[in-house]
Amino acid sequence: MKPARPRIRAKLFPTPEDAENAFYDAFERGDVAAMMAVWAESDDVVCVHPQGPRLVGFEAVRESWAQIFSGASQVRIRAAEAHRFDGQTVAVHSVVEIMSAPGEKGSPGERGPTGSVYATNVYELTEGGWRMVGHHASPMAEIPAAEDAGPPAHTLH
Amino acid sequence: MKPARPRIRAKLFPTPEDAENAFYDAFERGDVAAMMAVWAESDDVVCVHPQGPRLVGFEAVRESWAQIFSGASQVRIRAAEAHRFDGQTVAVHSVVEIMSAPGEKGSPGERGPTGSVYATNVYELTEGGWRMVGHHASPMAEIPAAEDAGPPAHTLH
Repeated sequence: MKPARPRIRAKLFPTPEDAENAFYDAFERGDVAAMMAVWAESDDVVCVHPQGPRLVGFEAVRESWAQIFSGASQVRIRAAEAHRFDGQTVAVHSVVEIMSAPGEKGSPGERGPTGSVYATNVYELTEGGWRMVGHHASPMAEIPAAEDAGPPAHTLH
Repeated sequence: MKPARPRIRAKLFPTPEDAENAFYDAFERGDVAAMMAVWAESDDVVCVHPQGPRLVGFEAVRESWAQIFSGASQVRIRAAEAHRFDGQTVAVHSVVEIMSAPGEKGSPGERGPTGSVYATNVYELTEGGWRMVGHHASPMAEIPAAEDAGPPAHTLH
């Protein structure tokens, strides 16, 4: 039998990658507490959600994630095609976030990924390890070929 | 009489701010050579123009600026509301780019800024000083109040 662990504990991310993995894990699970454990507790953090305003400060960022997670259905996210600029105290990862809806498996409309987003993630080494201080996301420019091609040529019925 | 200086010379930006100033100066003047003197000559640089695709590599980025400058009329740009994360070798500036068209002065339709953009600018300390390695720009979310309010209540004639 495992000993009970305290639920509230500081998380330490030894590398920017650890912080990034925790970010996308919290994003997928819609877990506000886990999400905000990734962010630096600072009035200076900056977050731009796709087509959203620029939010500044821990509280504004927390409220935005709480709102996103309250309305959204579960989503799978894969951060791909990373380009990393890792300094000793500041690190930046440019990624493509590929999102898919796990609940839509087998549905006639299933086309794989439901959407992709360009994200620039900024991390800073704080006294509490690496934390996110910036997240800038914007919708992918290119519309998938399936969308350009007009109505589907084949239907299932 | 000043001695002639060679036109072609390496520019060294001693700080990320110097690189940023040169970036917006080149942007305003539509000067591709000056713009690309700011960017690191690397296959790893990343650039997302507003609503555009993610461009990777010096050549792709150069081509995009050449295209933008060939089609665009002159624009004034002010980078405001900066939040800076400055490390020893990597620096990130989140800014609001406020654009205005200098040619429209005094025209009846003049409303000040013609558009604003959120930008995350990433700089890296290279052997040639600080250079831009990332630029992620997306349109400002909120439509200016003047646009929401319908036709202007006051006209000049």
